[in-house]
Amino acid sequence: MLKTALHFSHQLLKECVKNGDTVVDATMGNGYDTLFLAELVGSDGKVHAFDIQEQALKTTSQRLTEGNMLERVSLHLTGHEQVLDYLQPEEMIQAAIFNLGYLPNSDKNCITLPDTTKQALDGLLTHLKAKGRIIVVSYYGHEGGKEELQAVDDYCKSLPQENYNVLKYQFINQKNQPPILFCIEKKR
Amino acid sequence: MLKTALHFSHQLLKECVKNGDTVVDATMGNGYDTLFLAELVGSDGKVHAFDIQEQALKTTSQRLTEGNMLERVSLHLTGHEQVLDYLQPEEMIQAAIFNLGYLPNSDKNCITLPDTTKQALDGLLTHLKAKGRIIVVSYYGHEGGKEELQAVDDYCKSLPQENYNVLKYQFINQKNQPPILFCIEKKR
Repeated sequence: MLKTALHFSHQLLKECVKNGDTVVDATMGNGYDTLFLAELVGSDGKVHAFDIQEQALKTTSQRLTEGNMLERVSLHLTGHEQVLDYLQPEEMIQAAIFNLGYLPNSDKNCITLPDTTKQALDGLLTHLKAKGRIIVVSYYGHEGGKEELQAVDDYCKSLPQENYNVLKYQFINQKNQPPILFCIEKKR
Repeated sequence: MLKTALHFSHQLLKECVKNGDTVVDATMGNGYDTLFLAELVGSDGKVHAFDIQEQALKTTSQRLTEGNMLERVSLHLTGHEQVLDYLQPEEMIQAAIFNLGYLPNSDKNCITLPDTTKQALDGLLTHLKAKGRIIVVSYYGHEGGKEELQAVDDYCKSLPQENYNVLKYQFINQKNQPPILFCIEKKR
């Protein structure tokens, strides 16, 4: 079966993240990706995870504790647009992931927004290592979702090809708006 | 590095084609994909390859002979829109690949065209096995290329989601019009 955007995001992360790396989960949510990243970076690595909802930190903290991986993760109760306040100036990251939209089974009014997403991307790009990847999975079925998708698309298209490759991965014959994946890869 | 459309097309073929399968190279060209498919299907498999240029058959035949794989390949000197005349009615295929555009280092006036591409796709879909894939890599930098790309995009979008998944894979920040990949996968 062709990989869904979600499964393909994990493949792209696996291909580039190794033991000891520093990575960012920009949208902690239920913590599935935080856990996935924590496994990839191993006990010598570091994950920074962001969310503005206390419930996200609670659920994720529990998930990490069960997996005995809480130590390698910093959970930040703040929006991802503040990422520069939580990375050391010289701290370089190998990868970051965003799941844009709202937290499943949660408050549908609490959604990611174009401006803060762009701020977060701007900040993360300044910390991205060569060959590192920033992956954005955009769920856009909700109100305002299409505007956010368009903003991410525009942002990605504007990145200079001298410094970045940007891949777009999407299913185009489905009526139910499956998520669309963007992967920004930094060149050497 | 993120896979180019070309490399990703090979990954998608590798994932679904196995020993003994029947497959189609709809645009033989210099025979690289014909050879790749011949390796995947093995000595018990079968590759049908199409091209309207004699030079394509000559080059491909030579390539296959060197690899000792000519026996498992049928080279057809005809347009891929004739595919139904060359597949037995009950002959089911596991995969097909198209490289749309013109043959590199060859006559730039000899290009694939929207109508015949669609005819070929129509024909191949009727022979596609469940879980099988048809991959189209569209090079569209030449005159008429954008119209062909649009035709393929429209065709793919119109395929019913009950029967097919259609993936589009493209780099979106590059000025030099890198090829765009489409993969049609048939559901069970």
